[in-house]
Amino acid sequence: MAVVGATGAVGEEVCAILDQRGIRPKKLTLLASARSAGKRMKVFGGEVEVRELRTDSFEGVDFAIFSAGGLRSKEFAPAAVEAGAVVIDNSSAYRMDTGVPLVIPEINPQDARNHRGIIANPNCSTIIMNMAVWPLHCVNRVERIVVSTYQSASGAGAAAMEELRTQSADVLAGRDATPKVFPHPIAFNLFSHNTPIDDGGYNTEERKMIDETRKIFHEPGLAISATCIRVPVFRAHSESINLTFKEPITPDEVRRILMEAQGVELMDDVAGGRFPMPVEASGRDACLVGRIRQDVSQPDGRGIELFVCGDQLRKGAALNAVQILELIAG
Amino acid sequence: MAVVGATGAVGEEVCAILDQRGIRPKKLTLLASARSAGKRMKVFGGEVEVRELRTDSFEGVDFAIFSAGGLRSKEFAPAAVEAGAVVIDNSSAYRMDTGVPLVIPEINPQDARNHRGIIANPNCSTIIMNMAVWPLHCVNRVERIVVSTYQSASGAGAAAMEELRTQSADVLAGRDATPKVFPHPIAFNLFSHNTPIDDGGYNTEERKMIDETRKIFHEPGLAISATCIRVPVFRAHSESINLTFKEPITPDEVRRILMEAQGVELMDDVAGGRFPMPVEASGRDACLVGRIRQDVSQPDGRGIELFVCGDQLRKGAALNAVQILELIAG
Repeated sequence: MAVVGATGAVGEEVCAILDQRGIRPKKLTLLASARSAGKRMKVFGGEVEVRELRTDSFEGVDFAIFSAGGLRSKEFAPAAVEAGAVVIDNSSAYRMDTGVPLVIPEINPQDARNHRGIIANPNCSTIIMNMAVWPLHCVNRVERIVVSTYQSASGAGAAAMEELRTQSADVLAGRDATPKVFPHPIAFNLFSHNTPIDDGGYNTEERKMIDETRKIFHEPGLAISATCIRVPVFRAHSESINLTFKEPITPDEVRRILMEAQGVELMDDVAGGRFPMPVEASGRDACLVGRIRQDVSQPDGRGIELFVCGDQLRKGAALNAVQILELIAG
Repeated sequence: MAVVGATGAVGEEVCAILDQRGIRPKKLTLLASARSAGKRMKVFGGEVEVRELRTDSFEGVDFAIFSAGGLRSKEFAPAAVEAGAVVIDNSSAYRMDTGVPLVIPEINPQDARNHRGIIANPNCSTIIMNMAVWPLHCVNRVERIVVSTYQSASGAGAAAMEELRTQSADVLAGRDATPKVFPHPIAFNLFSHNTPIDDGGYNTEERKMIDETRKIFHEPGLAISATCIRVPVFRAHSESINLTFKEPITPDEVRRILMEAQGVELMDDVAGGRFPMPVEASGRDACLVGRIRQDVSQPDGRGIELFVCGDQLRKGAALNAVQILELIAG
C-alpha cells in the first residue's frame, strides 16, 4: 500500500495508526513532493525512504491513502486507480462526486462497497460532529442542526501548528504576530475559517459540513447551518451543537444512546466539572461528548444542546481513513 | 466618586475610560482589598493612593462603580447606598433583583431612572451579544437566539490573563500547564465555562445570558439558549449567534440596520476576508459584527447567522459602567 503526503501532519498520523492497529502491509510506499523525497521516516520500527509522488508511483499498489491536498489528489488519484489501487482520499477533491462514496465507518460502511476506485474521507469537522449526531438520528430523526466550531490549527497542516507555536512565543516576548500560513494572527486570537465565501455568505468549510452531512446521512433535505471558527489550539476540534429532533427527547435518553455508540466517549460529569476539552481529546480515537442538556429555547422538548471534541488528525482524518481501509481490505 | 476594586482588570479600565472620556470627578476615591491598600495608581496624569474598602469608605461619595466581585458588592454596596452614593455594580449580585435596573445604555437607558440606589451592569457576554441583537429586535422581533461563545481570559480577571500568559510559555517550553486560577488548562485549550451547573444542565454564565437578556429587553418569554466556552484569548469575547425573527429578513437589511446602530461597527468584508476577531476588538469601544448571512437551515427566510466580537473589559464591563454613570450623572 501507499501513503501519499506521508511527511504531512495527517500522513505521519496514518503511519502511526497503521502501526498501532497492527496493520502491516507487505510493502509500504511512502510518497511525497520532490522536496521531501529521500527523507527517511521511522515506520513499524524500521525506516522507509520517502519517494517522489509521480503518476508511475502506483505499480503494484493495492491501497493508497492520499493526504496531500485536493490538487495532488486530482492530479494523481486517477493514475493510482488506473494502476489498480483503491484510493482513500483525505482531500475534498472527490467528496461530493456522485460516483464516490463518502464514508464514516460507524455511520455508512455499506456505501464503501459501491466505490469505483476512490472512496472519500469526509471533512474533519463533519466527521467529529456526526459521530455524536448520527446515533441520535437513528433513534429520533434529527430535523435541524445549528453548529459552531472551535477548530484547531492542525486542520491546516503541520506548518500551521508550527505557526501557532512560533507566533505565540513571539507575542509572549512582546513581538508582533507575523501570519504566514494563516491570513490572520492565530496566537491568542481566533477568526472565521479562511476559506472562500460563496454567494450565500457561507465559507467552504461551512458548506462542507452541510453538504457532506447530507450525503453521508442520505438526507439531502436535512436542515443544517454551520459557523466555522479557527482557534489557537493545536490538534483537536470542538463543536457546540444545537439539535432539533422530530419527537421530544430527554438528555438522559441522549446519554443512554451515546453511551452505546461506537467511537464516542461520554464525558458529561456535572458533579466533577469534567467535560470535553481539546487537551483531553488530543491523541485519542474516541470523540468526546458532554454538556448534554435540554435546549430551553425549544419548549416542546425536541431540542438538545451538546458539546463535542475530537482529535482532528485522528478521527477527523487519519483514523477514519485507516478505518475505511480496514472496511474494504478486511 | 469611588472606584471599588480599583486594582483589578475592570477597575483599572474604569479609571482609563473616565480619563479618555474627559470625566474628571472632583474627588476620586480608589478602593480595594486590604492587600492592595497603600498602592499608588496613576490616574488623570497624577497618582492616587488606593485605600482599603470598608463600610465607612463612602462618606461624601456621589457615585461608586463596583468591580470587586459579587461577595464584596453584597457586603459593601448597601453601605455605599446608605451613605448617599448611587452604586453601579459590575457584579452579578443584584442583576436579577426586581428593584434594580439592569442597563445597557444603547438599549434600555430609561430603566436607569428607576433605580433605588443600585444600577446593575450586565454580564459581559450578554452586553456584547445584545449590542448586535437589540437593533434588529427593534425592527423585526427576535423570536429565538442560539448563541455559542468564545470567551477570553479577562472575564476571570487580571490573574486569569496572567495565567494564560505563563501557562502558554510553560507549554511552549515543554513544561506541564499548571492551572491555578482556572480549574483546567487554558493554554492552547478551551473548556466549558467553569461556573456551577444547574438542574437544567446550564451553567451560571449561560443562565445569565438568558435571564439578563430577557430582563434588559423586557421580554420575559424570549427563547434563548447559550453555550459558554472559555478560549485562550486575552481580552475580547466572540460569539456565534443564530437568530430567528418574527418576519423574513435579509442579510442586507441586517447590515443596513447595524450600520446605523450605536456602539456597533460592521466588519463584514467578504472580498477582503475581514471579519470580527478578538485582536481587532481589543481596546475598542465598538462591538464588531460580521459573517452576516441568511441561515440556510431556516428556509422561510426568518433566520440570520452572525459573528460578534467585543472587548470584554471595555463594552463588556468598564465602558458600559461609565456609560451608565454618564446617563445618570449627566
